[in-house]
Amino acid sequence: MNSSNSDIIVALATPVGEGAISIIRISGVGSIEKVDSIFVGKIRLINAKSHTLHYGNIVNKNDEIIDDVLVSVFKNPNSYTGEDSIEISSHSSTIVVKNIIETLVEKNVRLAEPGEFTKRAFLNGKMDLTQAEAVADIINSRTEASLRGARNQLDGILSKKIDLLRNELINSASLIELELDFAEEDLEFVSKDRLIIEINKIVYEIDSLLSTYSFGRVIRDGVNVAIVGKPNVGKSSLLNYILKESRAIVSEIPGTTRDVIREEVSIDGILFKLFDTAGIRVTKDSVEKEGVERSREAVKNSDIIILIDEFVNGIPKELYNELIELINEDRIITVLNKSDLAKEISNKADVNISVKDGTGIDKLIKKLKEKSLGSNSYTEKSAVINNIRHFDALSKAKNDLLEAIVSLNNNLSGEFISVNLRGAEDSLDEIIGKVTTDDILNNIFHKFCIGK
Amino acid sequence: MNSSNSDIIVALATPVGEGAISIIRISGVGSIEKVDSIFVGKIRLINAKSHTLHYGNIVNKNDEIIDDVLVSVFKNPNSYTGEDSIEISSHSSTIVVKNIIETLVEKNVRLAEPGEFTKRAFLNGKMDLTQAEAVADIINSRTEASLRGARNQLDGILSKKIDLLRNELINSASLIELELDFAEEDLEFVSKDRLIIEINKIVYEIDSLLSTYSFGRVIRDGVNVAIVGKPNVGKSSLLNYILKESRAIVSEIPGTTRDVIREEVSIDGILFKLFDTAGIRVTKDSVEKEGVERSREAVKNSDIIILIDEFVNGIPKELYNELIELINEDRIITVLNKSDLAKEISNKADVNISVKDGTGIDKLIKKLKEKSLGSNSYTEKSAVINNIRHFDALSKAKNDLLEAIVSLNNNLSGEFISVNLRGAEDSLDEIIGKVTTDDILNNIFHKFCIGK
Repeated sequence: MNSSNSDIIVALATPVGEGAISIIRISGVGSIEKVDSIFVGKIRLINAKSHTLHYGNIVNKNDEIIDDVLVSVFKNPNSYTGEDSIEISSHSSTIVVKNIIETLVEKNVRLAEPGEFTKRAFLNGKMDLTQAEAVADIINSRTEASLRGARNQLDGILSKKIDLLRNELINSASLIELELDFAEEDLEFVSKDRLIIEINKIVYEIDSLLSTYSFGRVIRDGVNVAIVGKPNVGKSSLLNYILKESRAIVSEIPGTTRDVIREEVSIDGILFKLFDTAGIRVTKDSVEKEGVERSREAVKNSDIIILIDEFVNGIPKELYNELIELINEDRIITVLNKSDLAKEISNKADVNISVKDGTGIDKLIKKLKEKSLGSNSYTEKSAVINNIRHFDALSKAKNDLLEAIVSLNNNLSGEFISVNLRGAEDSLDEIIGKVTTDDILNNIFHKFCIGK
Repeated sequence: MNSSNSDIIVALATPVGEGAISIIRISGVGSIEKVDSIFVGKIRLINAKSHTLHYGNIVNKNDEIIDDVLVSVFKNPNSYTGEDSIEISSHSSTIVVKNIIETLVEKNVRLAEPGEFTKRAFLNGKMDLTQAEAVADIINSRTEASLRGARNQLDGILSKKIDLLRNELINSASLIELELDFAEEDLEFVSKDRLIIEINKIVYEIDSLLSTYSFGRVIRDGVNVAIVGKPNVGKSSLLNYILKESRAIVSEIPGTTRDVIREEVSIDGILFKLFDTAGIRVTKDSVEKEGVERSREAVKNSDIIILIDEFVNGIPKELYNELIELINEDRIITVLNKSDLAKEISNKADVNISVKDGTGIDKLIKKLKEKSLGSNSYTEKSAVINNIRHFDALSKAKNDLLEAIVSLNNNLSGEFISVNLRGAEDSLDEIIGKVTTDDILNNIFHKFCIGK
């Protein structure tokens, strides 16, 4: 723990806005004494037992009452952070909260950085790094599925899996280390083949975990879907139909640009972020360069493209060819609208729909789900990775292990193999935070909100 | 307490939005047992002492963990509502909160109505009605002064004053009642003159309290200021200058109409709501009827009008005459801008300013404060009324007392006087809620937010 981690920190822990109660959180050695010095109640907080609540007044430096509050006392190590902590439950008023925090700051309590309470919980061994990351995921979860995924990660499902891999790796490594102690001899103490089998097994397990990433990411972050097509073929009607039909509209986010409208909708727990690229041609040689660039970006950032046209027109060849220059063909769903006006239904497109009477929308949504989740059958209850940091660390571990196998096959000395195995172990340690750097921690916790 | 007040109620008590913690509040007979049935922790909540906190999981009907939480237990009568109450502190996620509340609703816990927790606190004698109203005022307070005003009302300053008036009134009334017991005799037992003096004294005190209303309202709700003038005389420059110069800009509220821009600024604790009636002529015979109507409404709803023109033009007579048809002359501050270009300064306007170099803005702000607060010297620490309900009830009490005096002067029978005195008493009782109707309560508590 460095010196800044022994400061007493304070932050508003509840959202800003209209409500009845606000919670101000204070943590650190001496935090109970500190709050006690601005609290007037029946007993001194310093004499309070852990996990008790006390009614009283918070007063400013002039001994004027700022608010009547309930104070919760948590004593080290039985608190979220593992330190002495206090939560002040005040009336939910911006000014009350500001006055209480200012009064504490005057007493040399420091404003907390984003995620600093959870960072302290991690540093004090209350949770590992994947669990700390899950805390942020829970708060940011927008669908039931993403919440369950984060919940399981917080419950340690991923941690346990990584721990298991780590132990297998340590076992293999220790065989090599043992070998190295008998330095002069050849690598015969452990059968080389047995080691290769062990390491391959770990690689296989890492691969399984890596393969959950696209599923995990879809569950956590949702799926970007761009609706592309010529003007007036039903793009915005389709968007509105999907939004109207879906049970839960999560939010409506004003487009970051004037031309791209983004709407979010939760279908069976998956968050679809639908972009209507209204009025924008993907065509490269348009005069409207900036709009085209924006449109191409939107396509590139999409997980799925719905390419739509009217039934009478058929699939727009030129647009299709432009799209597959930007993204993989697999990611396109072709849709023909106004099937109600068609004399006979063809199989030219993936789905025929009629936004007018709703025909085919079910099938389109099914396709969207298939393309999002793939054919895999993970559930949020399995160990699933959903975080680029975990993906990168696992990939690095895998590469180190593959290198170790090559070295073994080439009969390289034990030291080489040992370095690779330790590298893989470090990568796994990084995931759960047994090994960290300030950079890693800053990266993780600065994405948190303040007060968490 | 009627039957609906014995239900167990639940609501989110913290604001909706990004944050670390959400609080779900549950209250009513049996609420601890109810939460206990979805809580898995080290002990049963039903065995917990009041004012203790317990870590554990909230589970849904399928025994799946919704979230790990801290539960606060409050036992009747030592809770906000005076009933058994629970606060669940969960991760701040819309879905977590929704799932916990839904699980409780499945167990026949009812969603709370706005202000229902505070209403129960009132019904259970934890606070009187002016204090309940102050709770809402604290939450809605936008400036330090409005917060202090609400704080003092919550601390019972107004209640005590009303109680004092009530006691004086009851003393006077009891003299009459005593008299009435000796029905046959004339009203001689109490000297008529003495009674008139007593009642006049109460009327005087009520008048003093009534006179604090405009001050109280300014402190609580702020002051509407419309800036009126011909196009391009510096209206929006003046608005921006005031906003920039003032220490604390409270908020920027997008105009409800396209033509009226409203900004809020706190100057020495007073909330000024400034309207720039940009581009709108107050002129009656404009083709743009709707715009004119809107403008006239804005003027009528203003507490103060800043009428501005350029120095070279002088005060715009026509506009001035139109304004005084709509509002009292006292409420207009005339301002001449571009004083920096004037050869000599005249006294034609209340204030000469130059938005360009800031000359005179101080004086204008001083005028704004004078016009807002008047010459009175109330502080928020005195008993002050700021609520139209209190104003109306006090006015009614005053009228009843004046009628009583007339009756006494006309030697009417004691019954008449007694009716008036009881009417006045009822009005005072209504303020603190000793006498209430469902209408009064609904009116008050439906303005609260849910969860309070």
